[in-house]
Amino acid sequence: MSELIAKNPQFEAVVRDSFSRQPFMGLIGARMSDLKPGFCELTLERDVKLTQQHGFFHGGLVGSLVDSAAGYAAFSLYPENSTVLTVDMKVNFLNPSDGDVLIARAHVIRPGGKLYHLKGEAFSVKDGEEKLCLTGVFTMMCLLGKSDAVNLGQKTGASS
Amino acid sequence: MSELIAKNPQFEAVVRDSFSRQPFMGLIGARMSDLKPGFCELTLERDVKLTQQHGFFHGGLVGSLVDSAAGYAAFSLYPENSTVLTVDMKVNFLNPSDGDVLIARAHVIRPGGKLYHLKGEAFSVKDGEEKLCLTGVFTMMCLLGKSDAVNLGQKTGASS
Amino acid sequence: MSELIAKNPQFEAVVRDSFSRQPFMGLIGARMSDLKPGFCELTLERDVKLTQQHGFFHGGLVGSLVDSAAGYAAFSLYPENSTVLTVDMKVNFLNPSDGDVLIARAHVIRPGGKLYHLKGEAFSVKDGEEKLCLTGVFTMMCLLGKSDAVNLGQKTGASS
Amino acid sequence: MSELIAKNPQFEAVVRDSFSRQPFMGLIGARMSDLKPGFCELTLERDVKLTQQHGFFHGGLVGSLVDSAAGYAAFSLYPENSTVLTVDMKVNFLNPSDGDVLIARAHVIRPGGKLYHLKGEAFSVKDGEEKLCLTGVFTMMCLLGKSDAVNLGQKTGASS
Repeated sequence: MSELIAKNPQFEAVVRDSFSRQPFMGLIGARMSDLKPGFCELTLERDVKLTQQHGFFHGGLVGSLVDSAAGYAAFSLYPENSTVLTVDMKVNFLNPSDGDVLIARAHVIRPGGKLYHLKGEAFSVKDGEEKLCLTGVFTMMCLLGKSDAVNLGQKTGASS
Repeated sequence: MSELIAKNPQFEAVVRDSFSRQPFMGLIGARMSDLKPGFCELTLERDVKLTQQHGFFHGGLVGSLVDSAAGYAAFSLYPENSTVLTVDMKVNFLNPSDGDVLIARAHVIRPGGKLYHLKGEAFSVKDGEEKLCLTGVFTMMCLLGKSDAVNLGQKTGASS
Repeated sequence: MSELIAKNPQFEAVVRDSFSRQPFMGLIGARMSDLKPGFCELTLERDVKLTQQHGFFHGGLVGSLVDSAAGYAAFSLYPENSTVLTVDMKVNFLNPSDGDVLIARAHVIRPGGKLYHLKGEAFSVKDGEEKLCLTGVFTMMCLLGKSDAVNLGQKTGASS
Repeated sequence: MSELIAKNPQFEAVVRDSFSRQPFMGLIGARMSDLKPGFCELTLERDVKLTQQHGFFHGGLVGSLVDSAAGYAAFSLYPENSTVLTVDMKVNFLNPSDGDVLIARAHVIRPGGKLYHLKGEAFSVKDGEEKLCLTGVFTMMCLLGKSDAVNLGQKTGASS
């Protein structure tokens, strides 16, 4: 992977601010454990409420965490006054996420004007060892001139 | 879609029981609003805690809900004493989920011995109208001889 | 699927002309058997040279044909002076393509400014009956202001 | 990637023999330029008949070549008396394949009993430099007890 350059010098503040405004990430307890231009890592501690019927991290949640990491890895390269949209995600589940910690990592494979191609992975950590649980490829769109900070849901009067 | 036949006459009880043992589905407030052999529908009311930065249902959550619907649509066709595993999911996000209700529907396109191919979709409901938000194709595996009811996470002493 | 409208009244001539300029489609013997705004069907007769080791249509070829159908289904909705690019394809192989004829059909699920989301399928025809062999979801890009007719390969002096 | 072990000591002969019995690979002129347990590389020289309307390698063909590389990378790890089937392929097209040579490389990320997860990539070579054109994730199935050498197409009396 060649060195990727952030167009926006404030990228870290912008990305972390956006992440902090995602209530769903707060609900599950995810934190942004690393961020570099074109790279994002999210970390999640196991909690029973995040599990499926066998006690593992819920697969959909695992995909969800990697999707978020991919979105923010792309967003870190975007110019000012833009926001990010997932076009598609395609993932394989390789192993159950049976660890105590879940780590999602994503990096931009190819930046573009509108479209960013990313690789994303999830690792389950147990006894200090990482196991690859999910791998996939994501496409993210850069929406120029659309603020990431506008909460459209509030405008529609949607209930809490 | 030709008529699909459930191998297990108790399929409805088995599937609904499994769903009820997924704490993550409880956390987000999803309910199984329909179930037929090879078909499953999950419904979710909007709540601010389920949203992303623009106030819409979080995209990862949308994918997650459809993945669960697909898993249970496949599981409804499985024989007794088996469980379900997502092999892969691949989805396109067509529209933001800006409604008050989110509906995920999945049906089996092709059942098999081990592998089940499914189509899954998510619809956002606003003012009584459904809008297609996500469409995708899923592969589910049938794990024979593995009980769906064993909570392996508890065995590992993982914390709550 | 709601009625889709072609922006370019000459869409049929434009699409069929582009198809005729794809040497690879000529090599495999594909013909465009149907075309409507947002919909394309390609048909291919079985020939031993198109098969894999079991004598079926080669899987990669099947994917290839559906990808082309999807590309032209999208292209049929594009404005003048544009060309089409596959962003991603994701397909499940449901059955071997063991028929005498292979039919690929694709339609636009959601048109956009830059991105078009499509569903594509391949059917194997044997004794007059169609069997679904492949189903998938595709993302196509509309490249505005880029002529579909420019043969860039010739410029590079690449050999024939 | 940890070291992968071939179950079949004759894997190289078995894989190369299977590849040689794929008429479609012969039609396009692909050759197997490398093979190791869990890894396969296919190479293809540019020829006008393999191109699309802009003179580049046809995108579907590029996907097709990587699918074949992925299939044989998986097959190299299979036990005797088995054959390989693509369950799904999901790929992003990153750059047009505008080079003189196309190289497809695939390796097994996770082997299994029935299912093998793979990563596949295509590179376009121009002036001696490789450019990544396609990246994707593949799922392959191991069909035990089914000979790879049976040509079922001949049985059906399909024409040549």
